[in-house]
Amino acid sequence: MHTLIHVLDLFGVMVFALSGALVAARKGMDWMGFSLVAIVTGIGGGTLRDLLLDRPVYWLTQWYYLVLCILTALATFYLARHLHERLGWLLWADAIGLAAFTVIGNDVTLSTGASPFIAVVMGVMTATFGGLIRDVLCGEPPLLLHREVYATAALAGGIVFVSSLTLGLGDWVAALAAFLVTLIVRGLGIVYHLHLPSFPREEESGG
Amino acid sequence: MHTLIHVLDLFGVMVFALSGALVAARKGMDWMGFSLVAIVTGIGGGTLRDLLLDRPVYWLTQWYYLVLCILTALATFYLARHLHERLGWLLWADAIGLAAFTVIGNDVTLSTGASPFIAVVMGVMTATFGGLIRDVLCGEPPLLLHREVYATAALAGGIVFVSSLTLGLGDWVAALAAFLVTLIVRGLGIVYHLHLPSFPREEESGG
Amino acid sequence: MHTLIHVLDLFGVMVFALSGALVAARKGMDWMGFSLVAIVTGIGGGTLRDLLLDRPVYWLTQWYYLVLCILTALATFYLARHLHERLGWLLWADAIGLAAFTVIGNDVTLSTGASPFIAVVMGVMTATFGGLIRDVLCGEPPLLLHREVYATAALAGGIVFVSSLTLGLGDWVAALAAFLVTLIVRGLGIVYHLHLPSFPREEESGG
Repeated sequence: MHTLIHVLDLFGVMVFALSGALVAARKGMDWMGFSLVAIVTGIGGGTLRDLLLDRPVYWLTQWYYLVLCILTALATFYLARHLHERLGWLLWADAIGLAAFTVIGNDVTLSTGASPFIAVVMGVMTATFGGLIRDVLCGEPPLLLHREVYATAALAGGIVFVSSLTLGLGDWVAALAAFLVTLIVRGLGIVYHLHLPSFPREEESGG
Repeated sequence: MHTLIHVLDLFGVMVFALSGALVAARKGMDWMGFSLVAIVTGIGGGTLRDLLLDRPVYWLTQWYYLVLCILTALATFYLARHLHERLGWLLWADAIGLAAFTVIGNDVTLSTGASPFIAVVMGVMTATFGGLIRDVLCGEPPLLLHREVYATAALAGGIVFVSSLTLGLGDWVAALAAFLVTLIVRGLGIVYHLHLPSFPREEESGG
Repeated sequence: MHTLIHVLDLFGVMVFALSGALVAARKGMDWMGFSLVAIVTGIGGGTLRDLLLDRPVYWLTQWYYLVLCILTALATFYLARHLHERLGWLLWADAIGLAAFTVIGNDVTLSTGASPFIAVVMGVMTATFGGLIRDVLCGEPPLLLHREVYATAALAGGIVFVSSLTLGLGDWVAALAAFLVTLIVRGLGIVYHLHLPSFPREEESGG
């Protein structure tokens, strides 16, 4: 399983880096800007997770994660025009990345001896923080805070992961179930444009 | 005293989480957005402090801090309409949180063997960083950087704390004095709308 | 050489703090806002580097870095009007800071046993992250992501540093060469307004 998760993780980093590079394209950045935003988006979530858990930051030794982000950024720089024509698949690729990051966040956190509750929180954080700093850096309103069920999918997946382990299911089964639940919840959000009920926005008045 | 400080700390986290949730309400977020912003605002300052001091991040083991933030967010989601009618008390509740966070930041930092100067800096940081990332995430101009004496209150409290200890006063007395000074300085700012003198803002011209 | 690097480092922190304080001036902040933005800009890059490498954050023990940022902020608060009249030299002072931070970031990272590739990345990060959070905090579009060759200069310097060491040149020579290359690349950017080719910005349409 570890190989499969690792492949999905690399896929997730690539997809998240791509989403960062596409924002860079919209903002008219140069290839250095593309690379920086792609790196931050691709590895931001896992980096925060490792800092909070006081683990060695994973890409310091597994440097190919950075290379993957940079290559994705450069490819996007030269190909973004063509990519833009059909972005439907990107939402689905992003959903796969979200599911992979959730399961990895859950699994890594439990391995440090943290509680299941913290593992669920860290799963959400690993999966969403990269996109959050992408939007903050690029001056966009954070998609995460307004988007169809996204963090919610990572939350659901995390609950499934820790519940499965608590029920005595094996690692494999728990990871697979959590991956699929995250993917399905996010997928329903994409297909049906599901939103959680929002607080009615007010007119801002004064300061 | 530790019990009292702990209660004030929980109160501070709750009040800061509430201030985050109210910004989420103004932005029309869903309950997941409310929770994320409330968590970041409530625990952001202490988290940065622990990361910088290389201590274990406090809410990894004391998970009820996160639960408190989430419950506050959900309660605000359903009650914010009523809360909005009278927010005067929130400024004062926030001042109590500010004072509690300042003292805790000072105390924790000294306990790691850092110098009094660093303890004062960390007190300001613990007390203000959560509100800062709340504003950055929500795309608001950071209140901290423009508001009536706020960070200044935390600075005054911290100076009182380390001075009291240097003068040989007991922990209790130092903490109480610092708490009260922070509260009073901030309270004067609220009542009299005190501002530090500002640099005259210029017209922005070009890039 | 260590003394020289240390002096250049202090110079870099001062210049970066100054650049932060000048943004604070443009935003009409009070002296507390000046100090906070100056600190974040001056020490932000090195702080992130130390957190990622799991080293003790350097200014916790070397507290004079903070004092330097605060003094710079206060001086700017009272003198900014006069400074504004001739900012040409600031670009060049900033370039020296950039070069110093790059070499220090490279050197510190290699000393933790990280790979040359990571050292180059950390050099860029040390040199640029402070300016990035300055802009995010102050609600400005990050200069870094749009500016004439800036991160690129740090990248070039880092590559020279690790290449020189790999070729067996001494520490001194490698540091000097990297410092000069960073300075020259950035200087060419300043003089000739060089930009990397940018992605053509699109009209933003919809959400």
